[in-house]
Amino acid sequence: MISFEEAFQNVLDHPLNLGNEQVTLLQSTGRILAEVIKADRDFPPFDRSTKDGIAIHFSAIEQGNDRFKIVGTLSAGMAQQTLSSDANCFEIMTGAVLPKAADTIVMYEETAIKDGWAILSKTPKKGQNIHRQGSDEKAGAVLLEKGRKITAAVIGVLASVGKTEVLVKKLPKVCVVSTGNELVEVSETPLPHQIRKSNMLSLTAALEKIKIFPTQLHLADDRTVVEKKLQKALAEFDVLMLSGGVSKGKFDFIPDALEALGVEKIFHRVSQRPGKPFWFGIQIAHKKVVFSFPGNPVSTFANYHVYFLPWLSKTLGIEMEKQHVILDETVQPQSNLTLFLQVRTERRKGKLLAKLVQGNGSGDLVSLAKTDGFICVPAGETEIAKGNAFELISCV
Amino acid sequence: MISFEEAFQNVLDHPLNLGNEQVTLLQSTGRILAEVIKADRDFPPFDRSTKDGIAIHFSAIEQGNDRFKIVGTLSAGMAQQTLSSDANCFEIMTGAVLPKAADTIVMYEETAIKDGWAILSKTPKKGQNIHRQGSDEKAGAVLLEKGRKITAAVIGVLASVGKTEVLVKKLPKVCVVSTGNELVEVSETPLPHQIRKSNMLSLTAALEKIKIFPTQLHLADDRTVVEKKLQKALAEFDVLMLSGGVSKGKFDFIPDALEALGVEKIFHRVSQRPGKPFWFGIQIAHKKVVFSFPGNPVSTFANYHVYFLPWLSKTLGIEMEKQHVILDETVQPQSNLTLFLQVRTERRKGKLLAKLVQGNGSGDLVSLAKTDGFICVPAGETEIAKGNAFELISCV
Repeated sequence: MISFEEAFQNVLDHPLNLGNEQVTLLQSTGRILAEVIKADRDFPPFDRSTKDGIAIHFSAIEQGNDRFKIVGTLSAGMAQQTLSSDANCFEIMTGAVLPKAADTIVMYEETAIKDGWAILSKTPKKGQNIHRQGSDEKAGAVLLEKGRKITAAVIGVLASVGKTEVLVKKLPKVCVVSTGNELVEVSETPLPHQIRKSNMLSLTAALEKIKIFPTQLHLADDRTVVEKKLQKALAEFDVLMLSGGVSKGKFDFIPDALEALGVEKIFHRVSQRPGKPFWFGIQIAHKKVVFSFPGNPVSTFANYHVYFLPWLSKTLGIEMEKQHVILDETVQPQSNLTLFLQVRTERRKGKLLAKLVQGNGSGDLVSLAKTDGFICVPAGETEIAKGNAFELISCV
Repeated sequence: MISFEEAFQNVLDHPLNLGNEQVTLLQSTGRILAEVIKADRDFPPFDRSTKDGIAIHFSAIEQGNDRFKIVGTLSAGMAQQTLSSDANCFEIMTGAVLPKAADTIVMYEETAIKDGWAILSKTPKKGQNIHRQGSDEKAGAVLLEKGRKITAAVIGVLASVGKTEVLVKKLPKVCVVSTGNELVEVSETPLPHQIRKSNMLSLTAALEKIKIFPTQLHLADDRTVVEKKLQKALAEFDVLMLSGGVSKGKFDFIPDALEALGVEKIFHRVSQRPGKPFWFGIQIAHKKVVFSFPGNPVSTFANYHVYFLPWLSKTLGIEMEKQHVILDETVQPQSNLTLFLQVRTERRKGKLLAKLVQGNGSGDLVSLAKTDGFICVPAGETEIAKGNAFELISCV
């Protein structure tokens, strides 16, 4: 049995290099950008009116003129026009191109329009109400760096430079595997000694949230069948994520089966609660990683968030956002294992406070639905005072 | 022009009542539960072994016995057996049903197994290592209340009670509408006076993140066509979300067209920046809501987060989570408009700090990609000191 710290480092030491892939613009939301995005033209691409009003040349104002003959109307989407004389003006709409030989825009609120003439009611400032070509970004400027998460705002930037396809980091192909003869389908009515599958479903939901759409596989407690099915899964997927079959029972032959298939055990059993019988292994030659979590719902769910998500961030080359919570009660853990305590959080004036969720051990699925995250309490701690800060391992 | 506070209240005063719908279990992730979920049986459904070891009757220990004849092996998924004599024991695996006439489980680590006998190395406590039937929840107990968000953990609970289909709150059918002759498709190379559509794409990405998959529609600047297309969209969708065409320009006839179609204007123009020319209306008889945002990227994006998301929470009957940030610099706003300032946030020891993003006005799309959210500064504020707390209108 190894310490949590050692186990965690071991997991992080085995990221996969999955490469990149092209996806369509809207499919790229939530993914990690794998190319540098540069401005394909100036932003904005022309001197752009920011108001509805009239476009004039300021020299007319300097000469004392405050009446302008309207020679046309310019709207967004029209090609650039030319102001032929500084005695004239164009009506101009927001988003339209500033005409040549004009340099100032006066908004309607500061003019009176009558009989084809615009009369100013207020002296304008030279150059006002123009969003200058290239003032946001020059053509060729880097707009987005590699490695950033693609948010809705980023989608807007990608659209504006014409990216119908975007190069993003590939996500691992994951197979979520349940084990155990006691499990029946969600649609079935279990016999008294049976229970419905739930870990596989909550893992699938958690993965889908981060845009990984896993395949599901169930293994009955039969060593030969288990090995055959695992072999097939190892060939098809980058990551196997199992729950159950890794404790010390007679039918817990998952570790043996994996090792027989050439998956090298990195560790089995971690000095932590929940999640102690966690088995982690890799098949280096074929670039496969196996997370074999213990089958209790709280154990599986905790280990997914404690180990898999940081491993995925490492694999994608991104930093995980670290969020801290402040413990809102005093806790007396008293365990020689590293503890992952279930907490419920509450925001109060810029602070995120955490209270323990009173669960009933690692089989208590219902307590998980009340849990916002886990905090990691080092082995041996006997009392942690209210007010201490912890990193939150969020699970919502 | 009305105040921001008034506009906001007006929007919240017009939620839609969309009702509920059945979706499949995994489709329900991220949605709002619209039914009460009760335990269909006890949780756990039987007295369940929490260890791998042997099952005995404690009376044998009281009589001084520490050796038990092994009469069989029980694994998870096997029907309940009966211990015929307290001189005997079953080997029992984690998750298996406690046999009748057994009341205590001793883990392998505290026994020696030899020649069909188990010899205890440590005196057990009566009733140990059993997860008692109904100890988490009794059959009929409420596990999940209506109105809660369906997380991955909730999916686990729903699976365990056999919900292959889940009743959730309906989401609005949304049509995202872009306007303006200057806009071309993302796939096109714009002429000098044209730009690519971006608002529609970022709104679509933002909506998809919350599981609303909108339809996209573009309106060229032609009043007759605009009215015809809007009429069709009003018939098909619950919500129209437009960008552009609502300022004071000659081609900004969206408000007129909407009113001609029987959409009642609730307000037009709000004393705020960005997003001032926002038009909001409803068609009461047909339960339609129209958010017509100004066309500048920052205006559209801010108003979506400032108005639409709170409106959606009201429509779904849920509380929006309120997150606060602490201003990490002193700000001198000086405006008689309510300001929505773009901020970038950083977590430090349980606190979320915010610094302003220096953008170049409401047309600056690129600055949005650096923005984590907006803070609302009331009209008339001249100085806000570093350290003040603000509600964060998150946009990532």
